[in-house]
Amino acid sequence: MINYPNGKQVKAEKVIEYGKRGMSLEDDINDTNRYYLEFDRAAIYKKPTPIRITKVEYKSRSTAKITEAFFQTPSTTDYNGIYKSLYIDFEAKETQSKTALVSKMIHPHQLAHLERVIRYGGIGFMIIRFNLLDETYFVFASKIINYLKETTRKSIPHQWFVENGILIPYNYAVKVDYLKVIDQYILEAK
Amino acid sequence: MINYPNGKQVKAEKVIEYGKRGMSLEDDINDTNRYYLEFDRAAIYKKPTPIRITKVEYKSRSTAKITEAFFQTPSTTDYNGIYKSLYIDFEAKETQSKTALVSKMIHPHQLAHLERVIRYGGIGFMIIRFNLLDETYFVFASKIINYLKETTRKSIPHQWFVENGILIPYNYAVKVDYLKVIDQYILEAK
Repeated sequence: MINYPNGKQVKAEKVIEYGKRGMSLEDDINDTNRYYLEFDRAAIYKKPTPIRITKVEYKSRSTAKITEAFFQTPSTTDYNGIYKSLYIDFEAKETQSKTALVSKMIHPHQLAHLERVIRYGGIGFMIIRFNLLDETYFVFASKIINYLKETTRKSIPHQWFVENGILIPYNYAVKVDYLKVIDQYILEAK
Repeated sequence: MINYPNGKQVKAEKVIEYGKRGMSLEDDINDTNRYYLEFDRAAIYKKPTPIRITKVEYKSRSTAKITEAFFQTPSTTDYNGIYKSLYIDFEAKETQSKTALVSKMIHPHQLAHLERVIRYGGIGFMIIRFNLLDETYFVFASKIINYLKETTRKSIPHQWFVENGILIPYNYAVKVDYLKVIDQYILEAK
């Protein structure tokens, strides 16, 4: 595992372990997206972490080794794609707190991007997991954006997610079945 | 400049030079996307190149230096985003040939992804530039997919692009104004 400067962890060597509980939210979402892809439902991907490359070694044309590089701040959210003609865009965050999500975990540029996505007619949302409570919430971005505009608090209470989010039940085959929430949304919008 | 194993070049240190001719197609498209963003028209971004990180040095929490990493093959196309509620997805290629685009420059996984995008109701296309002819074409992905399925040729002739593509005129302010083509498409689809 490699620790990102923001405290997130990524697997250095990717090992896909299907059906294993206790994975990170990112792993669970990637797993879910692979499931959607396999069953021909949606094409939604995690964007790679942007990296500024400053030194590369060339052994041959096909084997370049990066020997110096730095993490960059992404300008958008982590995930996007297409489902039923809809542009899908979201960010995922997990917290070890049982009581609240610290607001600064959600970056202003991510909120600005999600606001734009909504204005252009896309589906913008966030997936928030309270690890110790074993709860994963789907929250439409508009709700979080409005809440953060109105509040002076430095965190969003767990209770807020209970009232404003939609609990995504854990499923062995589809770990974070967020398209179910979108299906419901499409149904209600009709 | 850093040479990618596939022969593409990326700037190691990003220097934004607005309005300068002779930039790479990638630079011109990034410039165009920034223009669209600034004028609140669309949110379309280039995905970062996926990199497999194997070693990182930590000086402090905020300064991590990657000391060993390798380029990975992207699983999708380079660009995606949203415009007028539409999911937009495309790949860009430039060639030094005056007569044809070598087919293997378009990877099978990119074609498979674009085919999926179309099936799900998105707008999938390619932007092809013939550098020495100073011509940039917009081609709907469906046309390229069909052509490559039917042909045994190892390249797509320049004349094919003349007949099946839409020439995107170079514009000082908007270098590769591909949304103009999509606007026309929306108009005709109505």
